[in-house]
Amino acid sequence: MTQLSPVRSWVASANGHADFPLQNLPLGIFSHQGGTRRGGVAIGEQILDLSAALQAGLFDGAARAAVEAMAGGDLNGFFELGRGARVALRERLLELLREDSPQRAQLEAQQSQWLFPAADCQLHLPARINDYTDFYVGIEHAQNVGKLFRPDNPLLPNYKYVPIGYHGRASTIRPSGTDVRRPKGQTLPAGQAEPTFGPCARLDYELELGIWIGQGNALGEPIAIGDAAEHIGGFCLLNDWSARDIQAWEYQPLGPFLSKSFLTSISPWVVTAEALEPFRRAQPARPQGDPQPLPYLLDARDQAGGAFDIELEVLLLTDAMREQNLPAHRLTLSNTQYMYWTVAQMVAHHSVNGCQLQAGDLFGSGTLSGPQNGQFGSLLEITEGGKKPIELASGEVRRFLEDGDEIILRARCRREGFASIGFGECRGKILPAR
Amino acid sequence: MTQLSPVRSWVASANGHADFPLQNLPLGIFSHQGGTRRGGVAIGEQILDLSAALQAGLFDGAARAAVEAMAGGDLNGFFELGRGARVALRERLLELLREDSPQRAQLEAQQSQWLFPAADCQLHLPARINDYTDFYVGIEHAQNVGKLFRPDNPLLPNYKYVPIGYHGRASTIRPSGTDVRRPKGQTLPAGQAEPTFGPCARLDYELELGIWIGQGNALGEPIAIGDAAEHIGGFCLLNDWSARDIQAWEYQPLGPFLSKSFLTSISPWVVTAEALEPFRRAQPARPQGDPQPLPYLLDARDQAGGAFDIELEVLLLTDAMREQNLPAHRLTLSNTQYMYWTVAQMVAHHSVNGCQLQAGDLFGSGTLSGPQNGQFGSLLEITEGGKKPIELASGEVRRFLEDGDEIILRARCRREGFASIGFGECRGKILPAR
Repeated sequence: MTQLSPVRSWVASANGHADFPLQNLPLGIFSHQGGTRRGGVAIGEQILDLSAALQAGLFDGAARAAVEAMAGGDLNGFFELGRGARVALRERLLELLREDSPQRAQLEAQQSQWLFPAADCQLHLPARINDYTDFYVGIEHAQNVGKLFRPDNPLLPNYKYVPIGYHGRASTIRPSGTDVRRPKGQTLPAGQAEPTFGPCARLDYELELGIWIGQGNALGEPIAIGDAAEHIGGFCLLNDWSARDIQAWEYQPLGPFLSKSFLTSISPWVVTAEALEPFRRAQPARPQGDPQPLPYLLDARDQAGGAFDIELEVLLLTDAMREQNLPAHRLTLSNTQYMYWTVAQMVAHHSVNGCQLQAGDLFGSGTLSGPQNGQFGSLLEITEGGKKPIELASGEVRRFLEDGDEIILRARCRREGFASIGFGECRGKILPAR
Repeated sequence: MTQLSPVRSWVASANGHADFPLQNLPLGIFSHQGGTRRGGVAIGEQILDLSAALQAGLFDGAARAAVEAMAGGDLNGFFELGRGARVALRERLLELLREDSPQRAQLEAQQSQWLFPAADCQLHLPARINDYTDFYVGIEHAQNVGKLFRPDNPLLPNYKYVPIGYHGRASTIRPSGTDVRRPKGQTLPAGQAEPTFGPCARLDYELELGIWIGQGNALGEPIAIGDAAEHIGGFCLLNDWSARDIQAWEYQPLGPFLSKSFLTSISPWVVTAEALEPFRRAQPARPQGDPQPLPYLLDARDQAGGAFDIELEVLLLTDAMREQNLPAHRLTLSNTQYMYWTVAQMVAHHSVNGCQLQAGDLFGSGTLSGPQNGQFGSLLEITEGGKKPIELASGEVRRFLEDGDEIILRARCRREGFASIGFGECRGKILPAR
């Protein structure tokens, strides 16, 4: 295992950093004080500029090729190189940045050339997203939402056989910090036969894990379940903003459309499979009576270690809370363990019909709710469709999101004997409809 | 009107050409004998190489800018320039290629530099397709399919208010001539409770009009219905290949996914709005009792001339028919007049929530069936889900598509006093499952 807790970095802010200790080393695309977009690595409160470090002669061989593949200002080419290049770059970064690096004195002396305060940098989308697919593998969410409509039979018959997903809109995916303009659209008022047009009144968040596709496949050539993990480039947080009232009226018979396509927010750092290695776990055994996955979705190694233990958190900050200096209100504390299908199963299913996946494609997991109060990954579930409002310390109540509300997603991986790592935040604030 | 029937071209094969007379001038991306991809124009049996013609000094001003925008080997930059550049290029091409062109002698002498036999060229996708959206505006198809499931109430309540659409898979759109590998997937055999996995047994075509987006919009800024026509870059034919058995099992609750994403075929030539100008017509009056479109979908100019009269044809050619030298069997003869919503209404609806459209996005219209036998745009409708097989002159029957079957889509625009134009073919042949 390349990641061990005792290893510290000579970049002081990395040691004990909640998200970006030396053991994480997530990749992203950033610009420094308005400069060009380039590949970077988060280390504590700093960003390591990979192209500047390349120019300083710090990379050779496969690590060098990995950095050179980012020259276009996105990670697509790097993703396409696959696992080997990613691991080589990680190994070299660990070597450079660890406290006992043999080159430490020299590196510290030249660090101002390629190490910048994150506060002076802007993060961008890490890749050109060719296609975006949103899955629905959070079984607790599927059951919670299903119960609102079908109390006796919340899950549809296909759910435990098919990793359900649908194509999403790629053009409106934005990095954390992008404001969310409240969408307008058609909605059907309760008890009416004709729709009206106006601002969404039931604006919601959805807590999801994002999955970046690394190497793609050729058209017509499925990715076998045993190979699927090799095609995953990394992970992020994803907020699938949802207009529930627009969704309810539009979604039959072809699925969600304008209710989701106004914006999708992601955390901009790509957390690698290598950083998440200590937080892998076996896919939880299916409850008695559940069917086994069909053979094309079943792989012993994936069942033994294809799931992750990642804590997921959602916070709400309102204008009034900001004015009163109140801390953000925790809406959700959930975990990736509530995924009924692994990410490898998603990849194998998506490509089994010959569909071509490409480097830089993004998957969303679907909302990852837990079974208990406090674990629900959307307001639809928390307030039971608006029937049970939330009371906030500011004296406000919320059924759905109001203008000025900010939603903050966070993720944390913890394991005894290992350094904790996080994903960085995925934030978005609601602006009034135009 | 820039298009008048009597105008002939000195390119002899253009005069009376079923698809590409001088009045059409569709744009595309081609390569000549394995060379680089470049912009071209179809004229009769020839392709005019725009970059070679540019080098020969044939373009100035806005026409020159239009051709220069194709330098990257796709039409995205050209689409982004909008209507002005497109019209300037068309005017210049008409001037160059008409029979009485003042430069005719010089042009004929140098034509071998920039005019190639189409038979020596390969056609490619005309643009990088960022996002693909498939609509469902063929009301006769929606009713025919709805009747199979809900005989008394075939249309869902939202249909006459919402231009229904869903996000499709962009990575698997391919130009005419690309073979179609029969997909594998999960299906639920009749009367069974558990799905099986295997090759699709109910493979179908869908006859659609494709719409290319020209200039896009900024995130959060809807395109008003009155401006929508300005954002359309052109038109093509689209075959939305569909695996009906996979679709039936997977599509609840989030819509079609693997049943459509294995391949979508398009005709590679972009037919412009200017070429289609004589074939515009008023949007047919809605039947009595139908609601008026909501104001954001209603524009007097669009109602008066936003629809098109384009004849659409589907042909089937089987291995046995090829062996017996039989002509292709006509499955469908339909028309774009069966669109319940105009293309401008699709654009206005898609962006009304602030969704960003980008140059090179592609829309499908949805299956364009007519109300009568012979006008149905899919085998699902023709054979009533496989219950009424088609008999072919080869002695074969078809419920759905068999391996070796080829589907050919064609379009033709006819109007008294004007030259007819076509779209070129959209072909695809079924290969056995791997």
